[in-house]
Amino acid sequence: MAAKPNDGEKMHALAQRLFPICRSITGNGVRKTLKILQEQVPLKIHEVKSGTKVFDWTVPPEWNIRDAYVADKAGNRIIDFKKNNLHVVGYSKPVDITMSLQKLDAHLHSLPDQPDAIPYVTSYYKEMWGFCLAHNERKMLKKGSYRVVIDSTLKKGHLTYGELIIPGKQKEEIFFSTYICHPSMANNELSGIVVTARLAKFIASKKRRYTYRVVFIPETIGSITYLSKNLKTMRRNIIAGFNLTCCGDERMYSFLPSRYGTTLADKVALRVLGNLHPDFRRYSFLDRGSDERQYCSALVDLPVVSIMRSKYGEFPEYHTSLDDLKLVTARGLKGALDVYKAIIEYLEFNRRYITTVSGEPQLGKRGLYKTEGKTISSRETRTIVDTLMYADGTNDIRDLSEILKVTERDVHTAISVLLKEGLIRAR
Amino acid sequence: MAAKPNDGEKMHALAQRLFPICRSITGNGVRKTLKILQEQVPLKIHEVKSGTKVFDWTVPPEWNIRDAYVADKAGNRIIDFKKNNLHVVGYSKPVDITMSLQKLDAHLHSLPDQPDAIPYVTSYYKEMWGFCLAHNERKMLKKGSYRVVIDSTLKKGHLTYGELIIPGKQKEEIFFSTYICHPSMANNELSGIVVTARLAKFIASKKRRYTYRVVFIPETIGSITYLSKNLKTMRRNIIAGFNLTCCGDERMYSFLPSRYGTTLADKVALRVLGNLHPDFRRYSFLDRGSDERQYCSALVDLPVVSIMRSKYGEFPEYHTSLDDLKLVTARGLKGALDVYKAIIEYLEFNRRYITTVSGEPQLGKRGLYKTEGKTISSRETRTIVDTLMYADGTNDIRDLSEILKVTERDVHTAISVLLKEGLIRAR
Amino acid sequence: MAAKPNDGEKMHALAQRLFPICRSITGNGVRKTLKILQEQVPLKIHEVKSGTKVFDWTVPPEWNIRDAYVADKAGNRIIDFKKNNLHVVGYSKPVDITMSLQKLDAHLHSLPDQPDAIPYVTSYYKEMWGFCLAHNERKMLKKGSYRVVIDSTLKKGHLTYGELIIPGKQKEEIFFSTYICHPSMANNELSGIVVTARLAKFIASKKRRYTYRVVFIPETIGSITYLSKNLKTMRRNIIAGFNLTCCGDERMYSFLPSRYGTTLADKVALRVLGNLHPDFRRYSFLDRGSDERQYCSALVDLPVVSIMRSKYGEFPEYHTSLDDLKLVTARGLKGALDVYKAIIEYLEFNRRYITTVSGEPQLGKRGLYKTEGKTISSRETRTIVDTLMYADGTNDIRDLSEILKVTERDVHTAISVLLKEGLIRAR
Repeated sequence: MAAKPNDGEKMHALAQRLFPICRSITGNGVRKTLKILQEQVPLKIHEVKSGTKVFDWTVPPEWNIRDAYVADKAGNRIIDFKKNNLHVVGYSKPVDITMSLQKLDAHLHSLPDQPDAIPYVTSYYKEMWGFCLAHNERKMLKKGSYRVVIDSTLKKGHLTYGELIIPGKQKEEIFFSTYICHPSMANNELSGIVVTARLAKFIASKKRRYTYRVVFIPETIGSITYLSKNLKTMRRNIIAGFNLTCCGDERMYSFLPSRYGTTLADKVALRVLGNLHPDFRRYSFLDRGSDERQYCSALVDLPVVSIMRSKYGEFPEYHTSLDDLKLVTARGLKGALDVYKAIIEYLEFNRRYITTVSGEPQLGKRGLYKTEGKTISSRETRTIVDTLMYADGTNDIRDLSEILKVTERDVHTAISVLLKEGLIRAR
Repeated sequence: MAAKPNDGEKMHALAQRLFPICRSITGNGVRKTLKILQEQVPLKIHEVKSGTKVFDWTVPPEWNIRDAYVADKAGNRIIDFKKNNLHVVGYSKPVDITMSLQKLDAHLHSLPDQPDAIPYVTSYYKEMWGFCLAHNERKMLKKGSYRVVIDSTLKKGHLTYGELIIPGKQKEEIFFSTYICHPSMANNELSGIVVTARLAKFIASKKRRYTYRVVFIPETIGSITYLSKNLKTMRRNIIAGFNLTCCGDERMYSFLPSRYGTTLADKVALRVLGNLHPDFRRYSFLDRGSDERQYCSALVDLPVVSIMRSKYGEFPEYHTSLDDLKLVTARGLKGALDVYKAIIEYLEFNRRYITTVSGEPQLGKRGLYKTEGKTISSRETRTIVDTLMYADGTNDIRDLSEILKVTERDVHTAISVLLKEGLIRAR
Repeated sequence: MAAKPNDGEKMHALAQRLFPICRSITGNGVRKTLKILQEQVPLKIHEVKSGTKVFDWTVPPEWNIRDAYVADKAGNRIIDFKKNNLHVVGYSKPVDITMSLQKLDAHLHSLPDQPDAIPYVTSYYKEMWGFCLAHNERKMLKKGSYRVVIDSTLKKGHLTYGELIIPGKQKEEIFFSTYICHPSMANNELSGIVVTARLAKFIASKKRRYTYRVVFIPETIGSITYLSKNLKTMRRNIIAGFNLTCCGDERMYSFLPSRYGTTLADKVALRVLGNLHPDFRRYSFLDRGSDERQYCSALVDLPVVSIMRSKYGEFPEYHTSLDDLKLVTARGLKGALDVYKAIIEYLEFNRRYITTVSGEPQLGKRGLYKTEGKTISSRETRTIVDTLMYADGTNDIRDLSEILKVTERDVHTAISVLLKEGLIRAR
């Protein structure tokens, strides 16, 4: 089940295609993104009307934008949404006025400490407008009057999200969530989208025990909306969940636990990261900042964690135009995909075993002893016998490996033999 | 709710008034003491007949004493009960005889190691008589014959105790017990009496959630008598209890746990002492010696602990005439009162909180974010949000403080805001 | 209940008598052994037919042997079963042929590293024949032809075992198992047989609370057979079990726990060994090799451990003719017997106590205080009072000893006084 060598490149190519789209928490950018993702996996697209009450929130008006710029007297576009959609504050209301630089300045956002970066700014629930630009460019703006145009609409419409249920043999669900509300940024957040899409494709191609629930939603309002429609089912079925975000750079691996850090998702994530990337960085739930805020909230209480590369808020390019497809690489994406594949393999394979025989089975008659008598001569036979002893329905392969003080591979080999001989069965 | 500056002085003044009264486990000294306490709080006075069976015990005859002395041939009172009521062994039967010093000597008690102290001796259940005196005085007694008079009565009467139930909104009770059987000694035991009386007055003056049960009883036979009449109710209602004793010197704070040290009373006492007096001395239940012997006994099993200043048996003046109102000070008493007040505040305020909202609430629309977007800019907002996450009905303020790694004051502030906004409720 | 001084000699004498008998997993050697054991204890002898299905196994044909030898041309017995029954591979099929040394050699077993030892070899489930001899003797065999005779039978018969149920006041059982399938070897395994027989005799002679189940069975196939017939009852009744093996040398004490090491048998064994032989060697269940493989298997899951002297597989004489009655001594056997007697005493005496009185009882009226007043003057009185406090029905003597920080002997004394006074009762 190892990732194909070109998985990384495929994800990176998809990210390139999605990068220029101007996404927000609602609007056509989200629809266009989901449409492209449907080429990969058969997402069902849901639309929820503006004004719908979702828990403590209300689905906001839909925002769409066609163009936006600040032009000087000569008509030169000094700031141009067409060049980079980060130039416009997300959810800016429409404007078309001429104003002095002095007045315009109150609507400009830049970062003195990162003078070449365009910052990412939004104002979803307080109506306003604004432009973002590199501080170095801002400093070069000349006094005078400017024409300011934002050709946007903010009106009743829908919140759009994509959902994919991949049925398994069992009703128990593994849950994956990522978000589709960020415009042209790569680690936060195209990486989660392309890794989740690729992972869903992988899951659909494999035999599986569990059912998989995969959602592509706007952050916060999207997860709240989704929870308000599906909470009962999710609480009944989800045994482990993962919020995919910041999965694309090459710097490190990070882990953000669930509220108390004690769920199956925490256990599996820690075991897999501990195996594959033992130098991963371990955060506290107090460091949270994405949709685990909803999934792990006190009354929702789902077993959801995040495995990331460089975590949001912790890398210098975060929420600026510097978070681009040079920072996110094919190799970085593939690293995250491989971890999540290992998570799935672990969960799918994480069976607990129970013997079918009272007392020891007669291994001799099955050719499982190489010598006569009862002497256990080889490590393999010893592991088979020890595995049988502890196959009491409570231990998975990792537990057996810890109890027997042998590698998981050795336990795996023993389990295979015993399953073949009908001496144990998975629960 | 801080103690008024003159609380200490008021308690010390009350102690001075009560000091000369000759108390014992029964008799008019107890009645007179309770009468004076009724000026402070509306105690109900109970009388239980001599001979009443109370668990494994029987209420003894009532003891009263009017006068007692040892006089020389010339009629000079060499030992005089009127000078110090410790001079007579508690529960001494009446005598009026003349005897040689040699014979008298078998009835005298003194402390060679503390030659200036009159020891405190009683014999409640074995009929006898005796006198206590300073060893230095004993050594100066001259050979010859002495008239020995104890004008006491030991006959059917009552055991007397005071009880105060201060009703709260809830049936759950906080229990305070102190003892009124010690004659003229201050730390052990007038200090517990005056602190308990002041504490009861404080409780009655405050809004409260819990019901408070406060008893002034003779030690051992009194607590056994009280338990035998009230055990069922006490076991159903008491969530935390405290035996007040040795609350008046300035040397240290001490803690004596319940039988297994795991009750709510233990938890709260340790937290409060840990906050206010982190250098407190921690005893084992094996070091017990007061009414926790009854309250924590195996079949009674109430959640009772003791917070003391210098513990009985552990200070040199213990059970002698040196345990006086110079050892016990206004400042010493106030220190104990303040600890018990903090205990009450902790218990009253020690609510567990549960959010009223699924997912995160929309803080923006409530003006709880100072900035646009989702960035949590200030420590206050962060604590509000984190508190909400863990407001799952299992955590009190101290638990939240430990989980969130912020001060209890910070959690308190967050809780206040959230209660006001209706985003959490106390359980 | 200490062992009589000649217990060790008696066991050693019995071992000498049993030593020459050629035992195997079936056959007349087993019957003869059990017959002799019936002189000690009233064993019930059970016979189970060859071919009976027992869990995953089948009771094998019965094996009996009258004679066996390898003779040279001159008729001299070069290898002679009559001299040592280890010379024949256990379960050898009958042969009577003449063959060259070269061909014979494939049927010979010896130990180059222990050139003076005859090894112990069996082949219960794969039909074959063979001889075992000292490597030094093997090297001296001359080329030529040899007559090879094994006068054995392998045919339908029975598997034989002995069982003794010693009824107690309660249905709960203590279980002892040892094995009777080893021919002339002493530590592994005559020691377990003679210690078990002596222990059964001791149990039968004593008043007892528990019922005792004692079995003398062939290893593996015998315990599987026994379990297949008695599992339901055993699982319902057995509270602690012990597999007796390797109980006879003087080198050390060893402990092999149950599967998870958490049963009452584990607790008691560790406490008793910790008291008597604190330098005992502690093995893991992964080091198992005797009938705990059956008793502790996942679906059987009985609370069975082994206390041994030098463990099977861990002493150089193991499974050779060097494991004889010089290695096993009267003193070695008595050491093991004494441990098992202490186990029984511990289990029988390991009562949990509960007080009969609410609050403290009045010790004074019972003469349990030596002084007037409430001062507890002596260590004895203190332990009595403390024991009462914790006599809440959850603590046995060892628990009390740990809680009160006094010796078990002190608790024992206190318990005796309190039982006599009716102030506590055992549960």
